[in-house]
Formats: sequence, structure tokens, C-alpha cells
Amino acid sequence: MKIINYRHGEIVRAGCIVGENVVDLNKAYIQLLKAKGYPRAEQLAAALVPSNTIELIEGGEKSFEEAYKAVDFALANGIVINRSDVKIEAPILKPNKIICVGHNYREHILEMKRELPEYPVIFAKFNNTIIGPEDDIPLPPITEQLDYEAEFAFVIGKRARNVSQADALDYVAGYTIVNDVTARDLQRRTLQWLQGKTLDGSAPMGPWLVTKDEIPDPHSLEIVLTVNGEERQRSNTKNLVFNVHYLVEFLSHIMTLEPGDVVCTGTPGGVGVARNPQVFLQDGDVVRIEVEKIGVLENRIKAVSNAVEVGR
Amino acid sequence: MKIINYRHGEIVRAGCIVGENVVDLNKAYIQLLKAKGYPRAEQLAAALVPSNTIELIEGGEKSFEEAYKAVDFALANGIVINRSDVKIEAPILKPNKIICVGHNYREHILEMKRELPEYPVIFAKFNNTIIGPEDDIPLPPITEQLDYEAEFAFVIGKRARNVSQADALDYVAGYTIVNDVTARDLQRRTLQWLQGKTLDGSAPMGPWLVTKDEIPDPHSLEIVLTVNGEERQRSNTKNLVFNVHYLVEFLSHIMTLEPGDVVCTGTPGGVGVARNPQVFLQDGDVVRIEVEKIGVLENRIKAVSNAVEVGR
Repeated sequence: MKIINYRHGEIVRAGCIVGENVVDLNKAYIQLLKAKGYPRAEQLAAALVPSNTIELIEGGEKSFEEAYKAVDFALANGIVINRSDVKIEAPILKPNKIICVGHNYREHILEMKRELPEYPVIFAKFNNTIIGPEDDIPLPPITEQLDYEAEFAFVIGKRARNVSQADALDYVAGYTIVNDVTARDLQRRTLQWLQGKTLDGSAPMGPWLVTKDEIPDPHSLEIVLTVNGEERQRSNTKNLVFNVHYLVEFLSHIMTLEPGDVVCTGTPGGVGVARNPQVFLQDGDVVRIEVEKIGVLENRIKAVSNAVEVGR
Repeated sequence: MKIINYRHGEIVRAGCIVGENVVDLNKAYIQLLKAKGYPRAEQLAAALVPSNTIELIEGGEKSFEEAYKAVDFALANGIVINRSDVKIEAPILKPNKIICVGHNYREHILEMKRELPEYPVIFAKFNNTIIGPEDDIPLPPITEQLDYEAEFAFVIGKRARNVSQADALDYVAGYTIVNDVTARDLQRRTLQWLQGKTLDGSAPMGPWLVTKDEIPDPHSLEIVLTVNGEERQRSNTKNLVFNVHYLVEFLSHIMTLEPGDVVCTGTPGGVGVARNPQVFLQDGDVVRIEVEKIGVLENRIKAVSNAVEVGR
């Protein structure tokens, strides 16, 4: 299932996308329950198939199972919205945490003649960074070195604390794409990267969350980034030094992970700052990331003045 | 006003502490409105003096003004709770961001023969770290080098974007104390500090949020930390290289700040890792931080196994 957040006017609700159709999961489930003669269908649906994606994820297997039934019912009964009539937002809007992993593609580390790291490098973005697949990436005057980083990301589905690698996937809800947009000049002002990593709108995410049942092996996915059609990054998640299983174990031994937490697994070689000559993102550039079995996340760069407010 | 979160059973609500009395702000305001003959007192109170501290802060000056009236009314009419009958939690429980500043006390930087930095070093903690003034600080088996960092913290009161130093205090709700507990061994595993900074329970906060009207000058406050009664850190917020005004401007030019965001302004010299010989926190140690005009934040270190769940 491809879970989205879709916006209609001021309202953002969880949906499922099937081709050009959007199903409102909660509303479809209410209709299904009513068709089956259930009393208190709204209340039941609010509990089992809520309209907020993080709450839906929190519902776990049971909620996904019911959501699938809702989708089948909606498609069979034509209770769908045309994709072009709504705006698609990031699948997770206010996660508790966005955890990013640095230096995590093996072939890139080796080509740079570096040693494979003993521990993952982890750092944060705050959730002011999240924008959706139809939003522009703001280029504010504070940076002259905005750069892209194509990342395969996973989303936590169940509270996780001290989880083993063997059990790790039980705690994952699904997968998405994040562009870990980075202001290199701000990143390098100090030893800690945070200020270059957390500009408003610097984490385009989506276009959807693909539930894990659709991707049995998350470590065989081609990942490609282009800028204005020119290929800049290409690798495969099989090259991850620290894979999803490892990261769930590693992170959950440091901190309790919560449903909706987003883990960005790192970026392959080919970022703009490492090219010769260096090249940074400019107003109007189109950055496109494709990850096999997930889809395409494409955003345009838009120069903004300090006065512009990003996102919601 | 000293704003707290107080817990009674499963319920946590915003309160104000006056000596040994706790006033439930929302409930007191409902009583005040009813005494004045207002219809829909509960609804009005929910809007103006809500029971969640972040929502209360979001209400700004108007909400604080009404909250003061509620406190006066409650004290005059004996609508108070005995402090010993409730548990006091951290004044902010789920902030959007916890932003920490590193290397920010002038005399400490100079005594280390370092140059004053051009830009603040900023890094993150996630909100799994927050515990309250009556909680123990967990010492999990993953670290052997748990260390303290006494910090003066301010809390954002109003959405802030590209704010000038001149206007900065308009965006601050008040002040509190945070112990930026750090696992030095994890912090130093990689160049990025996050993994040593975000252990569950590693941000004791409180004991309350002092609203800014009570501290006209935040840059003249003595800050002292003791471990088992022995003084380890002492400075004054006048020694901050980057003060509150500067930080609001600096941070709000990078990211939109939201009501409830917590900014920890850095720690003075004297941390355990920098002592000769080094000394780290052990099971049973009591860490006490006093900041002038705010109060005392005191927590005990408690060794925990991997199986223990921290906090709420």
C-alpha cells in the first residue's frame, strides 16, 4: 500500500494512492463498516483506520489490514478522489524524530580511500524541514551552497527499545524517499552539522510511504538522483554499510524510537560539494530522486527572500 | 509566574507553583469565569488558559495575563493543591525542538586558550531525553562515561522567523534549567555528537518555567552545579558568548522556531570529562543545578538495565 497525506483546502488526511485514484482511508473504512451494518462506524474507524498517518502507522498490522479492506471496498464502489484534484503532502508531517545517517554507502567510502566506519554517524534534522513531493525547495539568501542528498528512508511503526537485528523489521512500517538537502556553507561553519541540515523545507519527503509488505528486501533497491535530467548520484541499497536491521538495533539501544520516526539511511557518492568543479543548486533546478519499488520524488529549487514563510 | 506540569495519576496538566501550593491554571480560570457569570466557561478557559503548557505558552501575553488572574483567584479562594500531593514533571514535555549550544561560556573558552567562536555550535537532543525534576537520570549499560552539563535554557513563546536581536525577547516565553546529560564515550564515537546527547532521560528539565516578566535581565544569573554537594561548575550568564538575543536572531534565520521550542544555551567549564582526573557520574550520585532567579533542578543517577523503560 502506498500511504499518502493528501490536502484538500485546509484539511490534510491519510490516503492511499492507486494509480490516479486517491482513497481516503478513514472515510472509506467508515463506508465499509456502515455497509456491513456496524453501529458507531465513525468511532470504530477513528480507532482502527485514523485519518492521521502517524496514528495509522501506530495501529500496526491490524490497522494496515483494515486499511487494505477499505481500499478494496472504495475501489469496488468508486469512492475515490482524482489525484489531480488534491495536493500530495509528505507522508509523515510531524515525526517525533528525523534521524539521519552519514557516510553509509560502501563503494563511495572506498572510492574516497576512507576506511569503513565502526559506528554509524548520526545527526538530526528538525521537522521544520519537511515538505512534500509537490512543494518547491526554498533557497534562502543565508546559503550559497545548497546541495542535494538522495536518501532511502524507513519509518518506524512500533515503539522500539533495545531491539535486535533479528526482530528489527517488526518495528518498521515502511519506506520512503528523503532528499537530505544541505547548506554546505552552514554545515561547515562549525564541527556540528545541524545548522546546515535544518533549514526550513530542507527535507522533501515522499511521494508516499510504501508499506513494508511491498518491499520484502529493502537492501536491493536502485537509487538514482538527477538534476535537470543529468545523473548525479546512482547506487543501490545493497551498498549500505549499516543496513535497516543494523540501524534499528543500533538506534534503539541509544534512544526509544516511536511510530512515525523517520530514519534517513545516508546518501551515495556524487553530491555537488564533492564534484570537481563543485556545483550547487540554483533557482529553477529540478532535483529528481528515484528509488526502485518506491517511486519518484521530484522538487524544484526556488529562491526565496527572508520574508517568505515555508510550508504549512 | 512559575509554570509547571504536574501529574496526578495518569493526568499531566499545567499548573503554577506558589510556595507549597499548586494552582491548576485551567481549572482555576474556569472557576474565575464561572464566578463572574460567564457562560461556556470551560470552552473559554480551554482557549485562553489551556491545560497543556505548550498551548498555554502559545497563547502569549494574553494567556499569561488571564493565567495571573486565575492564580490570584485560586489563592484568594483556597482552590489549591498541596505540592506534596502531586508529582512535578518537566515544564515542557514534547517540544518541537530541543536546540543546544556548545562552547558558549567566555571565561571557559579563554581559560582553555581557545579563540572565541565566530558562530555558535548548535546540535540537537530529541524529546525522548526529557525527564522532570523528580525523576532519576538513567545510567544505562551502553555508557561508562555519563557526564553532567548545567545549562540555562529559554523557551520560545511565539513562532519566530528572521527575528532581529532588538525584537528577540518578544519571542521568548521564559526560562528554565536543563541538565544536558552527555555520554562522552558515545559522543566521541563519531564527529557528530548526537548519539552521546540523546539517551533516554538525558535532559532533566525544570523545576519550572519562569515567565520572562520575572527575569528582566537573563544575562546576570549565577549558575552552579554540584555533584553530591561538591561544586563542579560555577559561572554567570553574563559570560555567555552568544546571549539570548543573539541566539533568537541566529537560530530564527536558519529555521522557524515554534512555541515550546527549548534552547539550551551551553555549559560553563568544569564538566567531568575535562577534569584531571576525569570523573563520570555513578549510580546514586546526586546532581544539583541552581540558577539564580529560576531555582534548583536536582536529580539522582540511577543505573538501569536495558530492559527498563524511562519516563512516561
